[in-house]
Amino acid sequence: MIKFDCDYLEGTHPKILEALVKTNMEQTVGYGEDEYCQKARQLIKDACNAPDADVHLLVGGTQTNALVISSALRPYQGVVCVESGHINVHEAGAVEATGHKVLSIPTDDGKMKAEDLEHYCAEYWADVTKEHIVQPAMLYISQPTESGMLYTKAELLELRKVCDKYSLIFFVDGARLIYSLANKNTDVRLPDLAKICDVFYIGGTKAGLLFGEAVVITNNAIKKDFRNMMKRAGAMLSKGRLLGVQFSELFTNGLYLEISSHAMECAQEIHAIFDDAGFEFLYNSPTNQLFPIIEDSLQEKLSEEFSFEFWKRVDEKRSAVRFCSSWATKKENIDKLRSAVEKYTQK
Amino acid sequence: MIKFDCDYLEGTHPKILEALVKTNMEQTVGYGEDEYCQKARQLIKDACNAPDADVHLLVGGTQTNALVISSALRPYQGVVCVESGHINVHEAGAVEATGHKVLSIPTDDGKMKAEDLEHYCAEYWADVTKEHIVQPAMLYISQPTESGMLYTKAELLELRKVCDKYSLIFFVDGARLIYSLANKNTDVRLPDLAKICDVFYIGGTKAGLLFGEAVVITNNAIKKDFRNMMKRAGAMLSKGRLLGVQFSELFTNGLYLEISSHAMECAQEIHAIFDDAGFEFLYNSPTNQLFPIIEDSLQEKLSEEFSFEFWKRVDEKRSAVRFCSSWATKKENIDKLRSAVEKYTQK
Amino acid sequence: MIKFDCDYLEGTHPKILEALVKTNMEQTVGYGEDEYCQKARQLIKDACNAPDADVHLLVGGTQTNALVISSALRPYQGVVCVESGHINVHEAGAVEATGHKVLSIPTDDGKMKAEDLEHYCAEYWADVTKEHIVQPAMLYISQPTESGMLYTKAELLELRKVCDKYSLIFFVDGARLIYSLANKNTDVRLPDLAKICDVFYIGGTKAGLLFGEAVVITNNAIKKDFRNMMKRAGAMLSKGRLLGVQFSELFTNGLYLEISSHAMECAQEIHAIFDDAGFEFLYNSPTNQLFPIIEDSLQEKLSEEFSFEFWKRVDEKRSAVRFCSSWATKKENIDKLRSAVEKYTQK
Amino acid sequence: MIKFDCDYLEGTHPKILEALVKTNMEQTVGYGEDEYCQKARQLIKDACNAPDADVHLLVGGTQTNALVISSALRPYQGVVCVESGHINVHEAGAVEATGHKVLSIPTDDGKMKAEDLEHYCAEYWADVTKEHIVQPAMLYISQPTESGMLYTKAELLELRKVCDKYSLIFFVDGARLIYSLANKNTDVRLPDLAKICDVFYIGGTKAGLLFGEAVVITNNAIKKDFRNMMKRAGAMLSKGRLLGVQFSELFTNGLYLEISSHAMECAQEIHAIFDDAGFEFLYNSPTNQLFPIIEDSLQEKLSEEFSFEFWKRVDEKRSAVRFCSSWATKKENIDKLRSAVEKYTQK
Repeated sequence: MIKFDCDYLEGTHPKILEALVKTNMEQTVGYGEDEYCQKARQLIKDACNAPDADVHLLVGGTQTNALVISSALRPYQGVVCVESGHINVHEAGAVEATGHKVLSIPTDDGKMKAEDLEHYCAEYWADVTKEHIVQPAMLYISQPTESGMLYTKAELLELRKVCDKYSLIFFVDGARLIYSLANKNTDVRLPDLAKICDVFYIGGTKAGLLFGEAVVITNNAIKKDFRNMMKRAGAMLSKGRLLGVQFSELFTNGLYLEISSHAMECAQEIHAIFDDAGFEFLYNSPTNQLFPIIEDSLQEKLSEEFSFEFWKRVDEKRSAVRFCSSWATKKENIDKLRSAVEKYTQK
Repeated sequence: MIKFDCDYLEGTHPKILEALVKTNMEQTVGYGEDEYCQKARQLIKDACNAPDADVHLLVGGTQTNALVISSALRPYQGVVCVESGHINVHEAGAVEATGHKVLSIPTDDGKMKAEDLEHYCAEYWADVTKEHIVQPAMLYISQPTESGMLYTKAELLELRKVCDKYSLIFFVDGARLIYSLANKNTDVRLPDLAKICDVFYIGGTKAGLLFGEAVVITNNAIKKDFRNMMKRAGAMLSKGRLLGVQFSELFTNGLYLEISSHAMECAQEIHAIFDDAGFEFLYNSPTNQLFPIIEDSLQEKLSEEFSFEFWKRVDEKRSAVRFCSSWATKKENIDKLRSAVEKYTQK
Repeated sequence: MIKFDCDYLEGTHPKILEALVKTNMEQTVGYGEDEYCQKARQLIKDACNAPDADVHLLVGGTQTNALVISSALRPYQGVVCVESGHINVHEAGAVEATGHKVLSIPTDDGKMKAEDLEHYCAEYWADVTKEHIVQPAMLYISQPTESGMLYTKAELLELRKVCDKYSLIFFVDGARLIYSLANKNTDVRLPDLAKICDVFYIGGTKAGLLFGEAVVITNNAIKKDFRNMMKRAGAMLSKGRLLGVQFSELFTNGLYLEISSHAMECAQEIHAIFDDAGFEFLYNSPTNQLFPIIEDSLQEKLSEEFSFEFWKRVDEKRSAVRFCSSWATKKENIDKLRSAVEKYTQK
Repeated sequence: MIKFDCDYLEGTHPKILEALVKTNMEQTVGYGEDEYCQKARQLIKDACNAPDADVHLLVGGTQTNALVISSALRPYQGVVCVESGHINVHEAGAVEATGHKVLSIPTDDGKMKAEDLEHYCAEYWADVTKEHIVQPAMLYISQPTESGMLYTKAELLELRKVCDKYSLIFFVDGARLIYSLANKNTDVRLPDLAKICDVFYIGGTKAGLLFGEAVVITNNAIKKDFRNMMKRAGAMLSKGRLLGVQFSELFTNGLYLEISSHAMECAQEIHAIFDDAGFEFLYNSPTNQLFPIIEDSLQEKLSEEFSFEFWKRVDEKRSAVRFCSSWATKKENIDKLRSAVEKYTQK
C-alpha cells in the first residue's frame, strides 16, 4: 500500500536521523537547557531575523496551541478563529480544557477576513452587556490553512491592523508552515511572520522531524515564565536535546527549504495527475495538501494500491479526498499513482 | 422612569418578603440542611411528581448552568445547544471555565430541532477521527428559549429520542420556566419536564424571588456528590435557609402559578398595545418577553418615560426591542405605556 | 435549642432587613450597576480611606476566595497559606478548580510567620529546578484567623516586607473581619488593611447581612476586568442591588462597629463563663469564636439545651468545641448558658 | 565532564536506536493505531500477565500523571500522596491544572504507610463537614519512591486494603519502575502491580528510551474513552509508532531486564565507592539512585571531573547529593569515580 493520507507517515529525514544517531550517546542536561537546544533556538531566530524573540521547542501541535493560548490570555478572554480552525474542530477540546472559549467565525474558504474580524470585535466592544460575553483577545489563524490555502502578506497586514485596533494577540499556527516557505505562490517568509504576528510556530512533525514544534514569541508580554507554563502542561521534554538536535539540523544548510521544495514539486505533480484527468478540486490549494473530487467507484479502485484521506462528501457519487506530499514523498510512487489514474479514467 | 427592560427589576414578591421577615431571627443550621430547605425540596418534588428526584437550591443561573454541566460530563465531553443558547453567548465563558466546549448548532428561530441534533451526533459518531473531536454528551435547551419561544411536549419527546440514541444527557434551563407554566400556549408542565429530561431547573430570580434556582435531577447518574460539586463551585449558600424559605413560599398555595398568570396577562396586554398600533414583532413569543420592532424615532420618544432593552437592529430606521412583564408588573404602568404609544403613533 | 455553633445562624440585622423591605418594590438595573451598589462601594472606600480602590460586592466566601486568587495569579503560580488556612482545608478544592495550587506551611498557632514565609520563598527562588515547582506568587491570610486569632499591625507589616521582596500579592480573607474592628485587642483598622495589603474582603454573611462579601482591591494590577471574571465565575448577582442595599446600611452610622461591639461583649461573657468555671481554651482567641476544652460528659449535658460545634479531640475524655457570638447573640441566652455551666460544674 | 546527575542523560539504548533507524522510512498510520503500537501493547500485557488491561503509550511523566489522575477522578475528588510525592512537588502544578487537589501526608522516609492512609481517610469520612473538604479518591505512590526506596508486596497489599475500604483508586507512578524489576531486593514484579493496583505506568524515558511511558489500566472504570482524554491533553503523539517501536524493543528478549540488571550492578558499585570510603547515605536506597552525604569541600573537588545533583543540605559542612546509574552507565566512568574518591579521601 502506498500512502498519501498525510504528511507524517514516515519517521524522520535521513539527515536528521543521522544527527540523532551521531549524538545518541552524548551526555547532556535535560529539559531543553543543553547546547543543541541553544543552537537550534539561535538558528531559528536567525532564520526569522528576530534576534529578540524567545524560541521554545515543544513536542506536538495540540500541546503547542493550548499552551500558547493559555499563556497569552487572561481567564475571561477567548481566541477568535474561523469555524474550520484546527483548534475549533480537531483538538478534542484542548483549548477549552485550559478554560478558554474558542470564538468561531464562519467563512467561505477557511481564511479569516479582516472585515469579519473587525465586525466581530466591533460588535463585542459596542455591546453594553459585554461583561457577560467572552472577550475576544487573540486571533488564531493557520498558515497554510486547514484546507491548504495561503494568506498573502497584504492579508496578514490587514489582520494585524484589526489586532492592533482591538488589542488582539496575533497567533499563527504553522504546523505546515515549512511547506509554504519554498512556495512561489507566497510572499510570506519567516521574517515577515516574526514581524507581523506576536507568536507563531514552525511545525516540525509534518516537515521531516520525528516530532517537534518551534514556538517563536516576539511579543514581550507573552515571554515571561513560559517555561513554567510548559512544565505545568507536561510539555517540557526530559531529553530536550532531541528537539535541539532535530531543529538544529532542519535549520542548517537550508534543509527546511530543501524539504519544502521537494514537497512542492511533488504536490504539483499530484495536482497535475488529477487536473490532467479532468477532475475538479474542492480547494485550489497551492501547498502540499490536494483535494481532488473523485467518484466513489474510482476511489474504490485506487484504494487497492493507494491510501488517501476522505475529506468531504460533495454529491451522491463523489467526494473530495486528500492527497498529501511531504519531505518523504517518492517520485516513483507519484508515477504509480499517475499510471493508475490514467488507467482507470481512460475511455 | 417606568422600567420594562427585564423581569428582575424589583426585589421579591410580597408574600415571599413576608416569609423572610417572619423567619428572620430564627436560628437554623447552614448550607441547605435546615427544615425550610427540606420543605422546599419536598414541595418541588411534589409539584414535579418526581418523588425520587434530587432537588438542590442554588443562587444564580450562570452558576447553575456551569455546575450542572460540569457535574454531568466527563472532561472530554461537550454540551450541544443552539447558537443563541444562553451558555453559548451570555455566560462569559463560565462553561468553558469548567473545561467543557459548548458545541453550537445554527437555527432559524432559536429552537433546537431534533433532526439537526440527530445530524450533528450522527456525524460525530461516524467520524473516524472522532477521538480528536469533542464528544457531544449533553443537550442543553431553554424553556422558554432566549427569544421567548416554547417547545411543545411532542418536540421535547423527539429530542429525548435523539438523546437516548446517542447517550446525551438532556438538560433544560428553566430560568424563565415559571412564565410558561400558567400559559395556555403550552402542554409542557413540571411533571412532563421531570419525566422527559435528566435534569432541569426552575428559575426563581426572574419569577419573584430575591434570587434562587432549583435544580431537579431525575437521572441517578448525576446525583452522586452533587453537594460537593456545589461547594467547590462556591455555590453553596451559607444561610441556605434563605433559599428554602423563598422556594417554600413560591410552591405553597400555587403562588408560582399565580405569578405566572399575572405575568402572562400583562404580556398579552403589552403585546396588544404594539399589535394594535400596527407594529411587527421579531419573534412571535407566547411568554413574558415581547420583541416589537420600533422606529428609532419613536423609541427615543418612549425613552423619556419608559425603559426597555435594545435587542437587534432590523433595518436602518428600526430595531427590535424587548419589553418584559413579570410578577411585579403594574397594570397602571401598562396603561401609561398604551397611552404613550397611542399618542405617538396616531395620525 | 439555643444555638452557638456559628455566626450565621439567623437572617439579617433588623436595620438591614428594614432597608431591604423599604426598597423592595423599587425598580433598579441589575448586576451591581444600580445606585445602592454605587453608594455601598463609596461608603466602603470612605471607611477604608482608599478613594482609588475598586470595590466589588459578591455573595459568598468560597466564591470570593477562588475569584480573587484566580484573577490575580497567572496559571503556573500558587498561593501560600498556613496549613489550617480556610482555602487549604474547607473550600472543597475551589481554588484548585481554578487551576492553582495552594502551597501550605505548617504553623503552631494558625498564624503565618514572616520568617516562615521568607524561608519558603527564598528556597523556591534558590532552587535550580524551580521551573518544575509551583511559583509562590500570593500570600493568603485570614484576619481573624480560622482559630480566632489576630495579626498585629507590626506582624502585617513584616509580612508585607516579604511580599515586596518576593513579589507576592498580599490577600487578606476578612470573612470575620468585622468582629475585629471594634476590638480593643487589635491595632489593625480598615485603612491599615487597605494600605498594607493588595486586596482584602470584608465579610458580610457572618456579620449581620443575609449574605455578601465586599472585595477591596487597592493594587491596580488586579483591577482590570474583574467584573468579567465575576460573571465567568457565576459570581455576579442578577439583583445586585440586594448587596448594595445591605452593605450601604452596614456602613451607615457605624452599624458595622455597633455589631462588632455587641459581639465582642458577648464573646467576653461567654469566655468568662468557661474561664470562671476553670476550663482551659484551645486557643486564646480575642474575637468572636471561643474554643473551651470540655469533658464529653458535660458536653452531653449541655447539648440538651444548647448546640455548639465540635472542633478537635484533645484527650480521651475532653475535646475542644466552638461557641460563637455574633450581631444576633442574645444576652438572655448567654445567661442561660452560664446557669447551665454553673449547675453542671458546681461541686 | 562525566555525568551522574540523572538517568536521562543520553539518547536511547543502541538496540532501540537500531529499531528506529530500521523502521524509519516505513509508512504507518498515526496516533498509536499502527502495528508497532499494537505489538508493544501486547508485549506489555504479556509481561504484566494482564490480558484484559488497556495499555496506552504516552510521551512523558508529568503528562502521564496529570492525565491518569484527571481521567480517573470526578472534579471534586483529590489524590492522596506523601509530601515528597513527585506530583506534589515537581510537576509545576500539572495536577492542579486539571482541577484536582493533591492531598499530601507527611512521612519520615518518603513511603506511604497504610495506617497513615487509613487514618486520613477515616478522618475525612467521619467529618460532618466533609462536603466542604476535598474527597480522597485516589492513592498515588511511586515505585521506586522519589528517594529510591521500594515498597514490598506486603506493603502494597496493605495499601490495597485501605483503598478497597475507602474506594480509592490505586495508582503507581513507575517512572523508574524498570530499575526495580531485576532487583534482588524486591518481591514486586509487573504481574504483581497489575494485580494489586488499578493503574500504573512503566517509565521508558529513564530506562533507555528516547521518551515514553506505558500506562497499564486494569480497572475497567478508568478505561472508557482514555484516548479522547489523551488527545485533549495534547498527549497523543502524531507519529505514535515511535512509541510502539521503542516499547516493542524494550519488551523483546527481556531487554528491560537486561537494562535493569546493568543499572543495578552499576549502582552497587557506586554505593560501594562511598560506603568503603566511610560516607553515610541520606536514604538506604536499593535502586539506581544513591544519596551519599559529602562535605562541600570534597564535592567541589569531585565537580572538576564529575557532575551529580545537589539534593539536600544536611549540616553546615555537608550535603546529600544524588548519583544515578542507568542503562547507559559505563564501568570505566565508575572506575574513574572510585579513583577520584579514593584520591581525595585517603589520609
